[in-house]
Formats: sequence, structure tokens, C-alpha cells
Amino acid sequence: MSILVVGSVAFDSVETPFGKADEALGGSASYFSTSASYFGKVNLVAVVGSDFPEKHIDGFKARGIDVAGLQKVEGGKTFRWKGRYEYDLNQAHTLDTQLNVFSKFNPVLPDGYADSKYVFLANIDPEIQIKVLEQVKKPKLIACDTMNFWIEGKRDALKKLLKRVEIFVINEGEAREFAGCSSLVKAAKIILKEGPKVLIVKRGEYGALMFIGCSVFSAPAYPLEDICDPTGAGDSFAGGFIGYLASTGDLGEENLRKAVIFGSVMASFNVEAFSLERLNALNLEEIRDRYAELKRLTHFEGI
Amino acid sequence: MSILVVGSVAFDSVETPFGKADEALGGSASYFSTSASYFGKVNLVAVVGSDFPEKHIDGFKARGIDVAGLQKVEGGKTFRWKGRYEYDLNQAHTLDTQLNVFSKFNPVLPDGYADSKYVFLANIDPEIQIKVLEQVKKPKLIACDTMNFWIEGKRDALKKLLKRVEIFVINEGEAREFAGCSSLVKAAKIILKEGPKVLIVKRGEYGALMFIGCSVFSAPAYPLEDICDPTGAGDSFAGGFIGYLASTGDLGEENLRKAVIFGSVMASFNVEAFSLERLNALNLEEIRDRYAELKRLTHFEGI
Repeated sequence: MSILVVGSVAFDSVETPFGKADEALGGSASYFSTSASYFGKVNLVAVVGSDFPEKHIDGFKARGIDVAGLQKVEGGKTFRWKGRYEYDLNQAHTLDTQLNVFSKFNPVLPDGYADSKYVFLANIDPEIQIKVLEQVKKPKLIACDTMNFWIEGKRDALKKLLKRVEIFVINEGEAREFAGCSSLVKAAKIILKEGPKVLIVKRGEYGALMFIGCSVFSAPAYPLEDICDPTGAGDSFAGGFIGYLASTGDLGEENLRKAVIFGSVMASFNVEAFSLERLNALNLEEIRDRYAELKRLTHFEGI
Repeated sequence: MSILVVGSVAFDSVETPFGKADEALGGSASYFSTSASYFGKVNLVAVVGSDFPEKHIDGFKARGIDVAGLQKVEGGKTFRWKGRYEYDLNQAHTLDTQLNVFSKFNPVLPDGYADSKYVFLANIDPEIQIKVLEQVKKPKLIACDTMNFWIEGKRDALKKLLKRVEIFVINEGEAREFAGCSSLVKAAKIILKEGPKVLIVKRGEYGALMFIGCSVFSAPAYPLEDICDPTGAGDSFAGGFIGYLASTGDLGEENLRKAVIFGSVMASFNVEAFSLERLNALNLEEIRDRYAELKRLTHFEGI
């Protein structure tokens, strides 16, 4: 079933201890949609400027991503982000942010998009996330991400959004900040009271935790020898997660756990290279193989 | 089969955001032996001063721990450590260390200890760890821990020790520091070349990784709602790990994985209270139940 993603398409300039990329394709919606495209049809909603090259649009199309919702603002400039990672690759240091056309992003769903069944609201202003939801007819599943900036600056809008969302996907620091609580287990309980049925806490190289009521699932990260660039790992995770759910249509807990593992698989591929290089060059066999590796990685006998 | 542990017995004064303990029983050998005592007979080698109260010795005895190797230096003072944890409970901040009698610790194995089959050399000077090994007759398994202080100050002795050790148990930061390498997977390869067959990397609330040749096992930590005091978690882990191996006598990879989970179980209990309060009050059913919970926590279906 079709997947709708609303988020950013950007040019990222990234430095890590292992190399750098200049004005490479990035943004939450780019990572999400490329990752999810291995599982189903993705409807992309984002905004770019007239400096956005056709080759990137062709790249999306080549992965079967619908770009009818990718607005191009003539005379505008595409969102740019510049960041650096030190040896601790879990922490991005932002050097520069130029929102450009993204600062006036007003997502309007093209014909057909409103029927999307799986909706992922990537990290954007929660008021805009809500506006998108108002345009979707009968979604089967709504998931969203956010960041500390909105937790601090638009808490009320975020809380309003959470009442309409089934799955909330954030990172560890954000979960603690949102709940005002250092214990992640307590933070999860506080967050789940805000509305979502499921909370997924991303922990970078330590994997992810999924909270559903009182049940917790601990998912590993794939232990990579070389991490080239962590940018987009969280959105690649979300793409694999939502993509797998959409491809199966099963929202039971066992299947949600499998979906988290597919999320971890896609995130692990993404960080192997800059930009979307690795995500664009995958095949289904590699994805399945890595899933099986995560199964072996975590296997132990009962007593 | 009997387990030998050589390490510290100390008085710990600990402050956390959730409370404090003054001059409570601590030290690597105390945590290890109490944890391992649920699985088999432990021979304890450590040193204390004449200020060490008989009640703590009775406490060890009550758990079936052999204290013939616990030297008491008349007129000496017991090792004292004072530390604080902030909300990030993965990081201890040492406020004061008084080595006292521990500074001249010269472990001598009493009769019978030399026949111990499972040996754990807790975090002490690697030269002393080697001296202990020279007194053991035919051990079936030798494991050791260390810390950044010895990695920096006694690297050669530590490397010499590692050639005689099957299992090396250290934390994440120490593994990176020892190998001079930010990638944990690469660091593990470098460390395994120094001699050990097995490397276990402890990651606090994120669990542990076990490296055996090219095989990796990712073990979860139990997600606790309240962590009272992380002191001794690593040694409680080692106690559960070595204890389970000694109780089964099976050093195959599948059993090593189970042992890591028992280590994680014991560490999770330990951090629920200050000092040895929780570890001293366990029963086998609770241990088995938590093992089963870790199994459920990590379970996902194959594809």
C-alpha cells in the first residue's frame, strides 16, 4: 500500500573524521523515501528551489518514488545544511543552516496522495505536520518524528499532533527532553500517555527500543566496521520500518518488531556511505541477508 | 566447579541523583563473588584493613563464599572510593580514592585455591594479575578485566597478561582506548590479536557485545525504570557470566552467549540498589525470570 512522506529535501555538506561531502542530496524525505522505496510505492511531499538539479528528481523516479508532491519554487534556493561529526558519530554538530524555500513550506497534497494509507511526518514544524494530516483521507497508520527544536519551541502543537499519531519515532535525547526525565522507561510511559500507541526510541549505534504499552522490544544496531556518515540514519530507519509495515499490512506487535529490524537494516546500510549513495545501490537480497545477520547477532537459547 | 576471583574489597561512598551511600561494602571482588555465588562456589582473594567489620565477612560466608583468601592487615585501613554519578549514569566521577592496604596488595592463594578451575582477575595492576596466574595450577578458563589507568600506565604488563587469558572483559571506552581506534569492530579485531579468544565489551545501559573471531553477539541490557547506583555493574556482570560458565562447564559459543545474558541479568539486579543490597537478596527464580524477560525483550521472527 502506498506510503506518504512529508519532510525536507536538502543539500547537505558534511564533514566526518573519514571524509566529506559537499552539497550532496540529503533531507529527511530523501532518506525516508529512498529507504522505503525498497518495500512499496512512496508519495513524496517536499519543497526545493530552482537550483535543484533534474538528476536528483530522476534519481527519485528511478526508485519508483512519486514526485508529484515535490514543489519547485522558481527563483528560490533549496534548503542547505552543513554539519560535522567528530569521532563520536552519535552527535552531529550543525555548522550552518539555510532554510531558504523550506522556511515557507506549505505542503499541499497532489491528487491521489490523500488516499495514502501509511503516513510518515518527518521532522518539520508540528503545525505543518498537522496541516498535512488534515489533507489525508483515511490513513491506516500515521507515524511522526520531531526534534529538540520543536520540543522546546512548539510543545503544544506537538502534543496536539501526538493525539492523532499511532507511532512516534524519536531519538533517545529527545525522548528524555520531551518527558523531562532521565529514565528512558519512565520517559516512554509519559510519552505514551500523550496519545501514540507505539514509541520508538532511536539510539544510534546502540540500536532502538520500541515501547508498546508495558511491552518493550530491544533491537540491535548492526555492528559496522566503518561508519562513513551517520546523516539520515534515523530517516532511513523510519523508511525501512514504515516500508515493511506497508508491504505487509500487519500492525501486530510481532510484525512491528520485524519492521524495527528492517529499519535497523536500512539505517546500517545508509551510514556506510555519504548521502544516498549506499541506499540507492541496494538490492533485496542484501537487505534480507542483513536481516538474517541481525537475527544471528542477537540469538541466544532460552533456559 | 570452583571459581577464583582476585580483586578489591572496599568501602564505597557514592552519590547519585537518586540518593547516597556512605562507606558501603563495595569493590570488584565483592560484587563479582556475590554475583557468582548464585552459580557456584567462589574463592575470594582480596585485602582489607582492621577496620573491616566482621558482619561483611559473615555476609560473604552466608553466600557460601570462601574467605580464606581475604587477608586482613592489622592496623591497616581498607581501600576507600568516593564517587558521584550525574544523570548520565554510564559515567562515574571519582571524588576520592584512598588505596590504603590495597596499595601493597600481594595476593597469596591459600591451600585449595590453586585448584580453582575458573579464574577471574578483576581490575587490579596487571603485574599482580600475572602473579596470581602463576599460583594457579590447571585452570580451565581465565578471564580478566582492566581499566584506563593500566592501559595507559602498564600497557606492556597488560599485553603480557592478555597472552595468557581466554576472555577479556572491558568497557567500551577502554576497548577504544586500548586499540587506539574509534570503530568498536576494528578495536575488537586489534584486541583479539593480543591473545584472548573472546572479547566482551560492556556498554552500560546499552548492554554488551561479545566478539569471538569474526562472530559478534549483541546482548541487551534490561531496561530498568529506576537505576539506583551503577557501581559494581561490570563486576556483577562478570560474576554472572563466569558463574554460569562454571556451573555448566560448557565453553561453546552458544553457552557463552547464555552466560553473557546471565551477566546482564546480574548487572541489572545490582544497579537496582546501593552496594550489595539487591545482589544479596536474590533468589534463583528471580534470576531465571529476568533471563526469560531478556529473551522476550529481544525476540523477533526470522524472514
